[in-house]
Formats: sequence, C-alpha cells, structure tokens
Amino acid sequence: MSKNSSYILKDRVIPKGILVAIGGKEDKKYDLHILSTILSLVKKQNKTIEIITTATQHPEITGREYYKIFTKDIKNTVGLMHISTREQADDLELLKRISEADVIFFTGGDQLRITSILGGSRIEKEILRRYENEFCIIAGTSAGASAMSKTMICGGDSSEALRKGTINVSTGIGLIDNAIIDTHFVERGRFSRLMQIVSMNPSNIGIGLGEDSGIIIEGGCILRAIGSGITVIIDGQHLKYTNVANIDSDESIAIENLIIHTIVNGYGYNLFEKKYLKPDDLKKMNLIESEVNTNENN
Amino acid sequence: MSKNSSYILKDRVIPKGILVAIGGKEDKKYDLHILSTILSLVKKQNKTIEIITTATQHPEITGREYYKIFTKDIKNTVGLMHISTREQADDLELLKRISEADVIFFTGGDQLRITSILGGSRIEKEILRRYENEFCIIAGTSAGASAMSKTMICGGDSSEALRKGTINVSTGIGLIDNAIIDTHFVERGRFSRLMQIVSMNPSNIGIGLGEDSGIIIEGGCILRAIGSGITVIIDGQHLKYTNVANIDSDESIAIENLIIHTIVNGYGYNLFEKKYLKPDDLKKMNLIESEVNTNENN
Repeated sequence: MSKNSSYILKDRVIPKGILVAIGGKEDKKYDLHILSTILSLVKKQNKTIEIITTATQHPEITGREYYKIFTKDIKNTVGLMHISTREQADDLELLKRISEADVIFFTGGDQLRITSILGGSRIEKEILRRYENEFCIIAGTSAGASAMSKTMICGGDSSEALRKGTINVSTGIGLIDNAIIDTHFVERGRFSRLMQIVSMNPSNIGIGLGEDSGIIIEGGCILRAIGSGITVIIDGQHLKYTNVANIDSDESIAIENLIIHTIVNGYGYNLFEKKYLKPDDLKKMNLIESEVNTNENN
Repeated sequence: MSKNSSYILKDRVIPKGILVAIGGKEDKKYDLHILSTILSLVKKQNKTIEIITTATQHPEITGREYYKIFTKDIKNTVGLMHISTREQADDLELLKRISEADVIFFTGGDQLRITSILGGSRIEKEILRRYENEFCIIAGTSAGASAMSKTMICGGDSSEALRKGTINVSTGIGLIDNAIIDTHFVERGRFSRLMQIVSMNPSNIGIGLGEDSGIIIEGGCILRAIGSGITVIIDGQHLKYTNVANIDSDESIAIENLIIHTIVNGYGYNLFEKKYLKPDDLKKMNLIESEVNTNENN
C-alpha cells in the first residue's frame, strides 16, 4: 500500500505488517480460500510459516491440522510453536524463528491463554515490533483473532449481553487499538455483546467476524473481507445516547443510534475514516494483491 | 392520546386500539410487570379479557396459566378461546365475545397456526375493525406478537440469517404494516434475521422484542418499552447499499448503514418519524397512563 494514499492520516504510525483475522471454522477441506489467501500475500516462493498453538489445550492435534495444510506446497517451511509457559514465551530460539517468519499464525482456543502466556514476553514484543516495522503476515483464527485487539472480549453470554456488566473484557496483544474483534459472530448471535462494548466507548469500532470469514487489515486501517461468510461492523461514532453510565449492574442498556454494516468477500471498510468500501473502492487503492476475488458478490 | 398530537401524520388512519407486543417468557411468577401493565391500560374496574390460544398445541395448559393470572382480580371476566379450526374462527358466539372484550390476548406457540386458522376469518376481521375504530387492547406474546405485523417472520435459523433466502416470511394479521416484529430476540441472537428482512425492504422498521420485554403501541406509531429486557429497533431508512438484489440464493449479504437502537423500560420510539424517545420525550406526550415506570433506567 502506498504511503501517499489519501486515506492514511499523517499523525498515525502506519504498520508495515498485515493482519488477517478469521472468525473461526475456516474451510480446511475444500478450496481453503482463507488459508491460501494468507499465504498468497507473501510474494515469494519459499515461505516460512510459524504456527503458534498457545490458545488451544490440544496443541498437537490443532497444530498438525494447520501444518498439513501449509506444507501442501513443499516449498514452504512450516514450524510449530507449542508455547504453553511464560518461560517458553521468552525462549531465544523461538524468538529467532518469530523474527524470521513470513507468516505467524495463531490457532483458536482460549484468547486468555494467549494473553496470559505471551503478554509482555519477548515473543509478543517481537511480534509487535515486526508488525510495525517490517512486512510480515500475522494471522489468527477465533481466539487468535480476538487476541489481536487491544480491548479483548474474553467472555459473556450473548443472550444476556445487553445487561450492564455481563461481558468480560481484558487486554489483548494490541495489534489493533481502535477496534474490537469478536468471532463466530453471526453463528453465535453475538451482536448484543459487541453492541454493549461499543456503546461503552464509541471510539471503538466493533468487528464481528463470522465463521469461514476473515479480514485482511492493511496499513492498520483498510479491511478487506475474505471467505464465504459475513463480517459485521458496528460503528458508534454517531451514538447519540446511552444510559450505560447511569444504570446499575445487570440492568438493561438503552442505546440510541449505532450504525451497523455487513461486509462480505470483496467488500471492505476503512477503520480510520469509518467508511464502507465497495469492490470498486478497493480496486482504486494500491493494496497488496491476493487471491481475494473482489468481483464475487458484486 | 390526543388526535392533535404533533407526531400524528394527517394522511394516516390512526387506530383507536392499543397493541401490546411481548417478546415471550414474560414474568408470570413475581411482579407480573408486563401482564399487569396490559390490564392497567383499561380504565374500568370490571374488565373483560379473552385469551386466544390458537398458536399453541397445548391450549388447555397455556390458557389456564393466563386465566389464573388474569382472574387474580376477581372483578375481571376472563374467557378462553381454544380456536383450532377455521370453522371456529367464524363462530358467531365467539365473534360476539371478541366484539365485547376489553383485552384480547394471544398466547405464544406458532405464528403460522394463528394466520392459517384465523386468516380472513370473521374473528380476524372483527379484531382489525375494533383495533381501527374502538378503544381496546390487543396483546400477544411470542408467536402472538410476531403475528401482529403484516410481514411476519415465520422461520429461519438466525445463525444462517445473513445468507439470501434463509428467512421465511409470510403474511401476518396486519395490525402493524410499517414494522416487522421478531421475538425472543436478544436471547436467541436474532439480529441477523431481522437485518436481512429490513435490508430487503428498508421501509420497514424491525422490532426485536427480548424475553420479558414488551412494547405498548399507541396510535399505531408510538412505542413504549415495558418489562425487564431489551427491545431492539432496526431502522433501514438510511441504508446506503445492499447487494441483496444482485446475489444468488444462499450467498452472503453485504449491507451498508443500518441504524440500530435499543429501548428499555421507560424508553420508546416513534415508528412514523423514526425517532428515538427518551423518558422525558414520552412524558410530554398525551399517552394513556399505565403502570409503566418511566423513571426506571433513566
């Protein structure tokens, strides 16, 4: 992406890395649309991919599944990182591998495992440093996507989610600081929990990733949807009123004027300008090429 | 409500009846907030209430439950109408009772039972006639609320609901023609199915009633929320774009710019002006008094 692009604000640091956040249950059997799109963002033949299984309690099984997919192209070098302790998260050998990977992929599981094990570690710092300063792909699915945002949803029953205090929030890795990512979104009906979080601080954009749905985030701001499902965007910038500061815990939340969009494969969203992007808008931008089909659903 | 109220548009027929739509699972054990609010709208001591159990497959059990509650005040006359055939829906004796009831209450069940049994019948016509011309209360919970709108949602899995054609819609009784009512809304995460319906024709307002949540609709346009839960309003008037007309069945739907509100006990919404109403706004209106506590959650 050109640094001269009009949508880049001058007072922001534009990260050189690219994020791919996936809502979980991405296709692993058929066309592998999302997973192959991730690899296609790296414009070289011999790609190095590191799979971090920290989120899951079953690192061997989960890791092997992705290992098989990413090694289908035998030119790729794929490593598994079963980091399950804070000591391992500071390990210098693993750190070196992170510093050299083209793609760092976080599996699903529990996002609190990611943050409690990696939070503040050398590996987390190196991921953040690389994301800001070097071209690299940082991808994550389900918990691996949720942990990307600075404000991270880590619990809360969607059916109770418009009652004050029913959603648990913690601090994520912080690759994104102006948006909050939720996953399995449409399938688990999680609208209300993201609405609560956005209404509590409308400066955040809520990103609800459906299953087999993902977004490529370029320059820290331009989202492009990939996959077969839906990504929901909840924008609080025009919020006119909420009672959330005036009610007791567990009381119902009144909210006036949230804006909601859905984006599907080929559509996008500008996080800084809070602007919906149609396939034609995306084509005009100098974005990295991928296997994303921007014509589908047009 | 005064006919001179500024929010009543001159070219619309203002119904004299009042609707109370409930999202299901209203409290039947503790303070009975919603059910007693319904009765409190009738300003006389000896109230006649008719319970129509057509929606349910268990009319005796369901009917008895409401009968017990409504006869707690022994001055009330409560009748049960187990209408389960189209012949019964034309019965002249039942028709007479409908024409004299202060409150007509539809239980939950399946909204297609209501419309397939009552649709076009004498009883349905009498309910519509009375709603338009006489002061009366027409209340319904769950299926009984869904059936009130002209466009009636009657099926569709919420988790698949942002794929084209996954929601089944039929024709309801038509007491409301500019809004679509969905029920058990927050609890079953039904946002996406109402979003699909609104995006298909943005002239409709989507009303998503939570459990133990209801709305009083006065003059066919002023909604007041009652109960402990949340009512979601989805307004498509500022919808900028959707791909829904250009995609195939089962493809994902892109939507730009739906507006979403939540109202809780004491808050409201003007269906005609598409305007959010806070407790202070409601107090200024000449609305029928009820046991609704407009100060709560303020």
